[in-house]
Amino acid sequence: MTTPFSFSLHHTDGQARTGEITTSRGVIRTPAFMPVGTAGTVKAVQMRDVEATGADIILGNTYHLMLRPTAERVAKFGGLHKFSTWKGPILTDSGGFQVMSLAQMRKLTEKGVEFRSHIDGSKHMLTPERSIEIQCLLGADIQMQLDECPPFPITEEASLESLELSLRWAQRSKDAFADMAGPHQALYGIVQGSVFEDQRKRSAESLQEIGFPGYSVGGLAVGEGREQMFRVLDFTTPVLPKDKPRYLMGVGKPLDLVGAVERGIDMFDCVLPTRSGRHGQAWTWDGPLNLKNAKFVDDETPLDPDSDCPASRDYTKGYLNHLFRAGEYLGPMLLSWHNLDFYQRLMAAMRAAIAEDRFAQFAAEFRARHREKS
Amino acid sequence: MTTPFSFSLHHTDGQARTGEITTSRGVIRTPAFMPVGTAGTVKAVQMRDVEATGADIILGNTYHLMLRPTAERVAKFGGLHKFSTWKGPILTDSGGFQVMSLAQMRKLTEKGVEFRSHIDGSKHMLTPERSIEIQCLLGADIQMQLDECPPFPITEEASLESLELSLRWAQRSKDAFADMAGPHQALYGIVQGSVFEDQRKRSAESLQEIGFPGYSVGGLAVGEGREQMFRVLDFTTPVLPKDKPRYLMGVGKPLDLVGAVERGIDMFDCVLPTRSGRHGQAWTWDGPLNLKNAKFVDDETPLDPDSDCPASRDYTKGYLNHLFRAGEYLGPMLLSWHNLDFYQRLMAAMRAAIAEDRFAQFAAEFRARHREKS
Repeated sequence: MTTPFSFSLHHTDGQARTGEITTSRGVIRTPAFMPVGTAGTVKAVQMRDVEATGADIILGNTYHLMLRPTAERVAKFGGLHKFSTWKGPILTDSGGFQVMSLAQMRKLTEKGVEFRSHIDGSKHMLTPERSIEIQCLLGADIQMQLDECPPFPITEEASLESLELSLRWAQRSKDAFADMAGPHQALYGIVQGSVFEDQRKRSAESLQEIGFPGYSVGGLAVGEGREQMFRVLDFTTPVLPKDKPRYLMGVGKPLDLVGAVERGIDMFDCVLPTRSGRHGQAWTWDGPLNLKNAKFVDDETPLDPDSDCPASRDYTKGYLNHLFRAGEYLGPMLLSWHNLDFYQRLMAAMRAAIAEDRFAQFAAEFRARHREKS
Repeated sequence: MTTPFSFSLHHTDGQARTGEITTSRGVIRTPAFMPVGTAGTVKAVQMRDVEATGADIILGNTYHLMLRPTAERVAKFGGLHKFSTWKGPILTDSGGFQVMSLAQMRKLTEKGVEFRSHIDGSKHMLTPERSIEIQCLLGADIQMQLDECPPFPITEEASLESLELSLRWAQRSKDAFADMAGPHQALYGIVQGSVFEDQRKRSAESLQEIGFPGYSVGGLAVGEGREQMFRVLDFTTPVLPKDKPRYLMGVGKPLDLVGAVERGIDMFDCVLPTRSGRHGQAWTWDGPLNLKNAKFVDDETPLDPDSDCPASRDYTKGYLNHLFRAGEYLGPMLLSWHNLDFYQRLMAAMRAAIAEDRFAQFAAEFRARHREKS
């Protein structure tokens, strides 16, 4: 458990990069997509099957876990890895984003954010220090600073004020992390600044002065739209250090991933593949399919006969349609699994294209084929 | 696909028996427990994992499948095996029991039973001939005659009248089966007669005059209670032929299985392991556990460290408790799997005890240890 955290950049093709993050629990091939295991489980998929898709790392949510079963209880069980049976690296968020989107009666101060649990109304305080403490109790390999994720749209003044608070919290997070974590763990700073170029630059530069082994891009995929998100990445990744991993939080759809990798992003997480899967939507090279649609009722073809994933290869679309119509558990189970597998195959295809200096061609072909509305 | 159906009795210990049913899709070790795959899926468990528990055969429900996706559609997909990906033998019921318990506006006549679907209100007619036709469209290896499963309690007169109807339907089922099925398939007759010894005897003898390769005991586990059920078995199995398999339909809890095997039953099916699993109840050698109970919140032990089943061995009770509290899919998935595995281990233990002429001792020890209320 003493391998120190490190990042090695392997190859660059335009802005797109391949590399490897080494952790004490295994190597993460980048660009990487992290399945979301909100409450200690990747919804409706066994960890064995998540692993088989080729996922190198999963994400856990501090907010959900601190409320239930509590970080202290997870620590008593030996940490989130042992609790959930996931053996590879785990990244945790700071809890801040979900406090702002899920919790009740939030009160934000310099100290942190006070809120009531959406589960039982209990009162909690999340500070930069408490967030790090929780993430260390969970045993997260990669941790996030507490930040304020401002709403979109936001005025320049309000964004700047929020950004400055996040920077002060970044320093406090780093100090707490130095006290509580080990060299096998890493803390990322989070770049904020909404859609404002000077603010993104100021955030990225200030975070680098504090110094982190990885940088997240936060505050995107909050309603600004794909073009705006790409525009922000266009001026944000160039001001991030080349030798550190870059993580675009909470993104996204396949076309988002391709466009963000094209702009130099190394890591992603999103609930979309599992959430879509629970609702009958399958992601494929050609775009999403709504398996509940009557047109699939007699379809004898699988989602992908060339896949190694049983969920993609062994069941007909007609059977999946039947499972969703009958409200059977197996429908969400199989489609969540399939979607996670598709996402990993997309990442693997992107890594291969970058390694062979043909990423632009790959991206163009993918965009030509992949229709978001089916 | 041409291995004919056959039954071979291996060993008898008291009334308890071990044997093997040979089908074109594999051997069924008896006494056997059949997981229920109502609508083409064993709820919340992958077929791969059902198979790994040691289940030799699963059950499909004619009523559910005839309504959705329809037997004709399943046939177009190549039959229920191919549709569901289950490669071993499948037994189907006749649909009669569920028509009486689930369907709307039922009208029973000599011809059959007319009803409206509980799903969409559509009108259907189930006759002995149509039931066999559906079971053949599904491709069931073992099929059931259409019978009337009378309510409990019932008067002797009403029971006798129902029994006579079921006997006439038995002959019609056999005739239809002879027209439609092959030698690799088998049709069982169903013994009725409620709790009346002379009626059970009359039913069993009349069915043998018609002649079936297997006999089911129907009309039990409908509210008469365990002692009454055992009393009926005490006088029913002795009037069934020794060289044919005996199937007790819709049973039951572990103590039911042990008591029925003790009375000469060879086959069982029940939704209990999967239904219990979906509701947080784990069956164990010591009895059922309600994993939702607060007492498990800090329990770091698995359900069974000695099991080969990942669901029983690799997850703590505290984690399972967390999954149910958080409403996660993985809770039902793991507990259904565990329960199916426990049921198969119980059957394997009974088969071993019979083979070694120590079934009475096994049953006594099981009863001493297994507490139904935990």
